[in-house]
Amino acid sequence: MKVGIIGAGQLGRMLALAGYPLRIEPLFLDRTNDTPGAQVGKSLIGDIADPAKVLELAAQVDVVTFDWENVPSSTLERLPADKVRPCARALEVSQDRVHEKTLFRLLDIPSAEFVAVDSRADLDRAIARLGLPAVLKTRRLGYDGKGQAVLRAPADVDAAWQSLGGSPLILEAFVAFDREISILGVRGARGDIVYYPLAENAHSGGILRYCRAPYRNRPLQRLAERHMRNVLRHFEYVGVLAIEFFVARGRLIANEMAPRVHNTGHWTIEGAATSQFENHLRAICGLELGATHARGHAAMINFIGRLPSMAFALAEPDLHFHDYGKSARPGRKLGHCTLMATTAARRDARLAALIRKFRRQGAEL
Amino acid sequence: MKVGIIGAGQLGRMLALAGYPLRIEPLFLDRTNDTPGAQVGKSLIGDIADPAKVLELAAQVDVVTFDWENVPSSTLERLPADKVRPCARALEVSQDRVHEKTLFRLLDIPSAEFVAVDSRADLDRAIARLGLPAVLKTRRLGYDGKGQAVLRAPADVDAAWQSLGGSPLILEAFVAFDREISILGVRGARGDIVYYPLAENAHSGGILRYCRAPYRNRPLQRLAERHMRNVLRHFEYVGVLAIEFFVARGRLIANEMAPRVHNTGHWTIEGAATSQFENHLRAICGLELGATHARGHAAMINFIGRLPSMAFALAEPDLHFHDYGKSARPGRKLGHCTLMATTAARRDARLAALIRKFRRQGAEL
Repeated sequence: MKVGIIGAGQLGRMLALAGYPLRIEPLFLDRTNDTPGAQVGKSLIGDIADPAKVLELAAQVDVVTFDWENVPSSTLERLPADKVRPCARALEVSQDRVHEKTLFRLLDIPSAEFVAVDSRADLDRAIARLGLPAVLKTRRLGYDGKGQAVLRAPADVDAAWQSLGGSPLILEAFVAFDREISILGVRGARGDIVYYPLAENAHSGGILRYCRAPYRNRPLQRLAERHMRNVLRHFEYVGVLAIEFFVARGRLIANEMAPRVHNTGHWTIEGAATSQFENHLRAICGLELGATHARGHAAMINFIGRLPSMAFALAEPDLHFHDYGKSARPGRKLGHCTLMATTAARRDARLAALIRKFRRQGAEL
Repeated sequence: MKVGIIGAGQLGRMLALAGYPLRIEPLFLDRTNDTPGAQVGKSLIGDIADPAKVLELAAQVDVVTFDWENVPSSTLERLPADKVRPCARALEVSQDRVHEKTLFRLLDIPSAEFVAVDSRADLDRAIARLGLPAVLKTRRLGYDGKGQAVLRAPADVDAAWQSLGGSPLILEAFVAFDREISILGVRGARGDIVYYPLAENAHSGGILRYCRAPYRNRPLQRLAERHMRNVLRHFEYVGVLAIEFFVARGRLIANEMAPRVHNTGHWTIEGAATSQFENHLRAICGLELGATHARGHAAMINFIGRLPSMAFALAEPDLHFHDYGKSARPGRKLGHCTLMATTAARRDARLAALIRKFRRQGAEL
């Protein structure tokens, strides 16, 4: 089969590599040929917002998917609905924090209180309603902590409004959380659903730094699966979906969802029976879904801004290195590694030691 | 790094896919562009026996390796010795069964009695010495059971001589074995060595049909590692080496070696901490070697002559499918699958059931 992938970033690259053993051939669409994807598969060069280009891509493949959630959903809507997986509607909802949180509310998935903010007067009313601290975010195009500001005191409001006020915004109540976790679900073309074990995530500066899986907690796993199932069924979704939650006093509070393979699922390449990338492809190509159980205890560390020396990293036993083939730039995700261990305690000890080593090498962690 | 791979078959293809996460870029050399490798990486088109082409390849990469053991070693010898891994000498010895068995003898590795046969008179003398049954084989270019004949009775000799007598031959004493096993070893550029757990192999018609790993037997594992170590050190070998053994009354009898990644190591993709493909690349690129322990119990089934329906195969839980992208032809290795299980007993039961299912689909197994 041929799969069109809109966006040729690292997620597209890892999809391509997962597809070859199944004889699934990728065709990327991206603005340049200087992409992680183009190093491992064929590319069409063009603007992902250009409907003609997307139609050209679709004409050459069996199914179209995307590796970036900011693909204009209007573009996808021009394609036959059964050729775009996951569906344009899921993409559209996840692109707008107000729509996303409205959906969570509709599906009885707890999430932070929120108010849409279109003017400075709206913002003042929203603060009066939710109180401080609160988080002001752009409704669209935020990622890795960009497009948001924490309002801790009334004195923060003017600066936040100055920096973000040009776009439609959302004010969200601040959630004092104990930990951040995420779940990946996969729905096949015939409605079959599988779930991965929970991952526990550590962010800093709005960017995922590392993640450990499986995070074993039966009640939270069951609850996260129920919320995931409701979202997947709501959209008649096909493919991998990620939902990030805060855990606050033992409760799950949905933070956001991503209608694609996800950074908090990279551990599944070595750490689960079937990787998220293979399962996304199995789903969108109408194949049976693969087993999702963990094969040991994994820790994934993102490489941001600069890569550590690969020779140095590979000296760590049972460490797996993923270089995305990008040029270095501050704050850019350049690669990741996954450490595997036979127990959670050993993994945690090795992760802590490894983070210290990478920091000594100058890594942002 | 850039790695030149002489031969773009399925082994080269799987090497390429293992290399991308480490930012190791493959460049194949093969006669046509219609190869498993060319579907996943760049190719030079040319005769692998053409020294000019091999030099052209070498000029574009950091290190040269091969996915086929019948690359003329004379070709490799023209390249700087430190640019060819494993070394041309190991390739040369493994290409000739007489040299190979002479090496085994030199290194105290038990193997079948043998006599080189260059004439019909030699053959008669060899039979008088080794007795019947015995196996007459071409010294060079045999694979998958091609170029050999079992002589069970004096009446078989004429026909065997007629079919094979045009080439230099070897007569080997027949080994009545209980099972066939193999070991993979990897030697890094600084002399570090790691071993994979033994695999137990099932051949039919001279072709590997399936293989199970780990085959747990401590004394045999230790013995096989000792033999492996002796061969690796003898050549100052760099990369993956496979040695196949017969087990006869608890003893190991070396059958043959292959100076490359090997079909009996395909289970390592899902079944071991680091795949043989990644470890071969780590070795030849001068990186640290990866952990080799098993992650569960694996069974690998070769798809010969025709592929089963992938949709059908993937319905089996924790089954991993590898389509090499070849056109079907009787006797041709087109792909394989690996089944993972948590115990050896469960794996064996599922393997037996799966083989029955594939046979009902018309597979040669």
